[in-house]
Amino acid sequence: MVVVMSAEAEEAHIQAVVGLVEKAGGEAFVSRGVNRTIIGLVGDVEQFGTLNLHALPGVTDVVRISVPYKLISRENHPDRSVVRVGGVPIGPGTMTLIAGPCAVETPEQTLEAALMARSAGATLLRGGAFKPRTSPYAFQGLGEKGLGILADVRAETGMPIVTEVVDARDVELVASYADMLQVGTRNMQNFALLQAVGAAGRPVMLKRGMNATIEEWLMAAEYIAQRGNLDIVLCERGIRTFEKATRNTLDISAVPVAQRLSHLPVIVDPSHSGGRRDLVLPLTRAAIAIGADGVIIDVHPHPETALCDGPQALVDGDVRELAETVRALPPVVGRTLTQV
Amino acid sequence: MVVVMSAEAEEAHIQAVVGLVEKAGGEAFVSRGVNRTIIGLVGDVEQFGTLNLHALPGVTDVVRISVPYKLISRENHPDRSVVRVGGVPIGPGTMTLIAGPCAVETPEQTLEAALMARSAGATLLRGGAFKPRTSPYAFQGLGEKGLGILADVRAETGMPIVTEVVDARDVELVASYADMLQVGTRNMQNFALLQAVGAAGRPVMLKRGMNATIEEWLMAAEYIAQRGNLDIVLCERGIRTFEKATRNTLDISAVPVAQRLSHLPVIVDPSHSGGRRDLVLPLTRAAIAIGADGVIIDVHPHPETALCDGPQALVDGDVRELAETVRALPPVVGRTLTQV
Amino acid sequence: MVVVMSAEAEEAHIQAVVGLVEKAGGEAFVSRGVNRTIIGLVGDVEQFGTLNLHALPGVTDVVRISVPYKLISRENHPDRSVVRVGGVPIGPGTMTLIAGPCAVETPEQTLEAALMARSAGATLLRGGAFKPRTSPYAFQGLGEKGLGILADVRAETGMPIVTEVVDARDVELVASYADMLQVGTRNMQNFALLQAVGAAGRPVMLKRGMNATIEEWLMAAEYIAQRGNLDIVLCERGIRTFEKATRNTLDISAVPVAQRLSHLPVIVDPSHSGGRRDLVLPLTRAAIAIGADGVIIDVHPHPETALCDGPQALVDGDVRELAETVRALPPVVGRTLTQV
Amino acid sequence: MVVVMSAEAEEAHIQAVVGLVEKAGGEAFVSRGVNRTIIGLVGDVEQFGTLNLHALPGVTDVVRISVPYKLISRENHPDRSVVRVGGVPIGPGTMTLIAGPCAVETPEQTLEAALMARSAGATLLRGGAFKPRTSPYAFQGLGEKGLGILADVRAETGMPIVTEVVDARDVELVASYADMLQVGTRNMQNFALLQAVGAAGRPVMLKRGMNATIEEWLMAAEYIAQRGNLDIVLCERGIRTFEKATRNTLDISAVPVAQRLSHLPVIVDPSHSGGRRDLVLPLTRAAIAIGADGVIIDVHPHPETALCDGPQALVDGDVRELAETVRALPPVVGRTLTQV
Repeated sequence: MVVVMSAEAEEAHIQAVVGLVEKAGGEAFVSRGVNRTIIGLVGDVEQFGTLNLHALPGVTDVVRISVPYKLISRENHPDRSVVRVGGVPIGPGTMTLIAGPCAVETPEQTLEAALMARSAGATLLRGGAFKPRTSPYAFQGLGEKGLGILADVRAETGMPIVTEVVDARDVELVASYADMLQVGTRNMQNFALLQAVGAAGRPVMLKRGMNATIEEWLMAAEYIAQRGNLDIVLCERGIRTFEKATRNTLDISAVPVAQRLSHLPVIVDPSHSGGRRDLVLPLTRAAIAIGADGVIIDVHPHPETALCDGPQALVDGDVRELAETVRALPPVVGRTLTQV
Repeated sequence: MVVVMSAEAEEAHIQAVVGLVEKAGGEAFVSRGVNRTIIGLVGDVEQFGTLNLHALPGVTDVVRISVPYKLISRENHPDRSVVRVGGVPIGPGTMTLIAGPCAVETPEQTLEAALMARSAGATLLRGGAFKPRTSPYAFQGLGEKGLGILADVRAETGMPIVTEVVDARDVELVASYADMLQVGTRNMQNFALLQAVGAAGRPVMLKRGMNATIEEWLMAAEYIAQRGNLDIVLCERGIRTFEKATRNTLDISAVPVAQRLSHLPVIVDPSHSGGRRDLVLPLTRAAIAIGADGVIIDVHPHPETALCDGPQALVDGDVRELAETVRALPPVVGRTLTQV
Repeated sequence: MVVVMSAEAEEAHIQAVVGLVEKAGGEAFVSRGVNRTIIGLVGDVEQFGTLNLHALPGVTDVVRISVPYKLISRENHPDRSVVRVGGVPIGPGTMTLIAGPCAVETPEQTLEAALMARSAGATLLRGGAFKPRTSPYAFQGLGEKGLGILADVRAETGMPIVTEVVDARDVELVASYADMLQVGTRNMQNFALLQAVGAAGRPVMLKRGMNATIEEWLMAAEYIAQRGNLDIVLCERGIRTFEKATRNTLDISAVPVAQRLSHLPVIVDPSHSGGRRDLVLPLTRAAIAIGADGVIIDVHPHPETALCDGPQALVDGDVRELAETVRALPPVVGRTLTQV
Repeated sequence: MVVVMSAEAEEAHIQAVVGLVEKAGGEAFVSRGVNRTIIGLVGDVEQFGTLNLHALPGVTDVVRISVPYKLISRENHPDRSVVRVGGVPIGPGTMTLIAGPCAVETPEQTLEAALMARSAGATLLRGGAFKPRTSPYAFQGLGEKGLGILADVRAETGMPIVTEVVDARDVELVASYADMLQVGTRNMQNFALLQAVGAAGRPVMLKRGMNATIEEWLMAAEYIAQRGNLDIVLCERGIRTFEKATRNTLDISAVPVAQRLSHLPVIVDPSHSGGRRDLVLPLTRAAIAIGADGVIIDVHPHPETALCDGPQALVDGDVRELAETVRALPPVVGRTLTQV
């Protein structure tokens, strides 16, 4: 940590900072310049954070240098991790396709979508039973009935299931059905939910908040990890910007950046970031080429009647091209498509 | 609702849209142009929303025209509402000052802060017992013990209390102490929490999500209203932009915009938007001048030891200027400071 | 300046930084921590900027501490400046109203608008003869003919004129008519234009780029100042964010922030930031209350036929309320409306 | 175009819109709903734009439907274009690598960088002689001397040159040396410059403004095209968002979106978007995989002494990997690396 003193800071102000830091068990190195003095702090940064140095007279800025997360940091764990979901690996060396309907609507629709997913090369099935919706008047999902449908389709297809949980009170219920719990973009800083999924004994897919910096996303993962669960997969799904041609702006750079800062796997959701069917395959190719550990894609047998996000779901005609893409592209970047 | 067909749309595509709309009980008016055809829809918009017209062949865009919220809309309720919190009004004609410490730390600190708040002209006391924090290693609040301290200070000062709830499971507990429940910026789309506070029988202050559009903010209020609670106060607290000189960018225009769209009172939080003590008074003046129904401000007797957001709390020396501002400015815009 | 070394930096890397800095005539103070080493630099920062320390092995980050502008900085010039435009002051103590049509269309329309402006309390006339337009098919202004109309209206009303210049080749021409040159938001980083207006011998109004940080805005002012012209007025006019209810988001905090960093006057454009007539008066009140040194407002006698930005121009019926606002509000914040 | 009337609009208001549109030679189709009336306009949209319908009583919104650009639109020119630069094609079927130093510093450095570029597979040489810099105290380029160096290196290597022009007054000079003129991100809405390069008889590379929507970017291209020059290559280089881990956020979706809206080639600049050397190769892979028609990359023989943007330049050790990437990846997406 570095404390920057203002041009008008007096010696007493400098000594006040040094005194507080040393009292907290740290060391302070003072560099005096013509116009400005800088104090470098060495020691327990979390401890310094509580000192409220910002509020001391003469202090202009306090710059944090070390990263504020620990358990999920690559500094402390140089090898990249593999997370297994019902036996299916997500991590370095492989490229895992997760696919399925945005929302579970009926047993038939879910099974059809799962078969589409499998024929595209997917080894994990996605599908929402609890849906967070901007409008209280929109379809909110089938709830437990939807979880039952997913379990039936898993029994029939052998595909482990990934499904969202939106309420800390439902975590136990959802975990009793799901192979992986998804925390959605709107809940990335729902800390009660993060702590609950951290204690649920299931792998977690943590979507990036559409307004979250990469650092905040990693801090959210740290919340989960702190409860003892390191089986976390990060999912980039687009951020909110001024551009309106796409629903959100896929931050493709976030994949290598997050992989460098954290040992956790990082996957991409090309369906929700663009919000347009015609962008799903191009964004999937970009995600694989940049080194994502997986992609998660909406498919729907009849998107024109989908109760949720139909405009972005891939249809039957797209599945062959998706299958071809996930087969041909990973080897060019040193990966293989995850197989059952 | 307007459906815009692509340049290549065929007559069959147009008829497909018309057919679907009419089957759903609506009317469709087709306007054919040289390059493009437009179809205007009249009827139940929520119903049309489920038709997934976006996904039909030949459809380029579906433009919604009527607002997607109802209960909180000013279209349906032209008079602006007054919300009463423990008898204190927030609404047109008055300017209500809410002040107190960011976090409840000790009985002494909370009482001192409440007395500062009162001497500035505040009629409601703010203070956090449950704190949502980006880092799992930061101070998370005193919990129920903090609520007890707030209740004691209310007994001593007579000031009704506003406090945040961060978990749907805590709503009943917090409501048993608080006069008004606060939903914070990170939870604005925590729909389970919105529904829980909507059913809690207490007025609610709904902070705008730092990444939320005004429309999404109003939709979040609709979630609360839908559970039978219309005692909602909207609070603008800054949005996330590229500018880093301030913690967030106070969207001052949101005050008149939201007041025009909704009948609910709208207040401003100048402390959290700027994140800097030196901006609190200037932003307070701007908020009052633009017609905010209230402001909510952090004060702390000893900010240099505050466990949360010390750098932005007003101190003793600022209180007199705040008092002067909230006394002198409201009359210029046709309001009076709310008094006990 | 502070250089942050990575956890893996070796002693040789540290010495390489120290060596380069000392060779450049600076001093380097090394603070070694358990995980990380920090090097504080003291000396000529511009010089260090050319050293490219970022690119050295072992370097994680280079943090600049002192501000990168000098001539316009308040550090070097603590008193806030007054800029005079044809004798009319803009600066501390006063609140100057600038008003007029967005674009000069005809002599009659310009004169009518000027009389509206004057009756509202304006002492400077705005009006565009050269218009930067997003579309090449939109009205681009009358050019020199428009400048002539402005000069005639100045002769008739006595109001000095503020008008935009969009091309470095036109600066001499525009300066031969105008009392103040305006650099628009799209040209804030048109460095050739900045240098040209810096040498033109006229006061300059520099609008903030809609995507510019406050620091970049001040750097753009430094470009003008560097050519010998310190008669610069900064104009906040809204930034681009995700919010679409307003054309841009007025960054009201930028007023006190820029006034603290620079000695230059700061005014606000409530017309272009909101892009909606119904927001002009509320935003004007916010701007005056926060301490803006002036406001610049579009008025138009017949906005329904305006060739540019009609939807945001104040009309006759609004002028009385504007006059009342600019008369009543400045005294509450210690200012008086600038009079001729 | 669609005009949306407010709930309170009266019949006279509706008739006023219809009357204006018909007087302007258009047709208006009125769709009356229970709560709201919609008027669809058919005819010359540019003409309607001047009617200022927004400002009429009873009008809530005017929604434009057809695209506002023509010459560069794919609607009017379904086949994607190939632009030739000194004989080197940029367009569908090929993937063209442009590389070179950010700034021309010396003949030796420029030649060395060109040889690096060529060995990586580049067929065009980039290099800046005129540099737009945020600070007036930063290196501004060698000017005409730099152009001479580029011409010498072209003579030696046979690589046509791409170089930036920042001032309309310099266009003729730069065009006398360059094979392709570059308009930089800060000048994307410098309309005088756009018109000047449109008339210069050289292909133009138009970088997207860091704050520009895709539509504004295409409108800027239309400015160039309108002067008779359709040899335009669009270059996505990252947009400004709240994320600070990268200098800008590469909007990778912009590649397919712009290719669908316009027939012009679209390339990507992975060096300036990320601003970090370690992201250049990953972003290059993403750009090729998504279907970019080319990439433009900074290389430097000695980045630790570069006068501009050294931290992002690829070095000798990276060149082999770049060569391998641009050779292996294009065939997977149906393209071949452009060869001399």
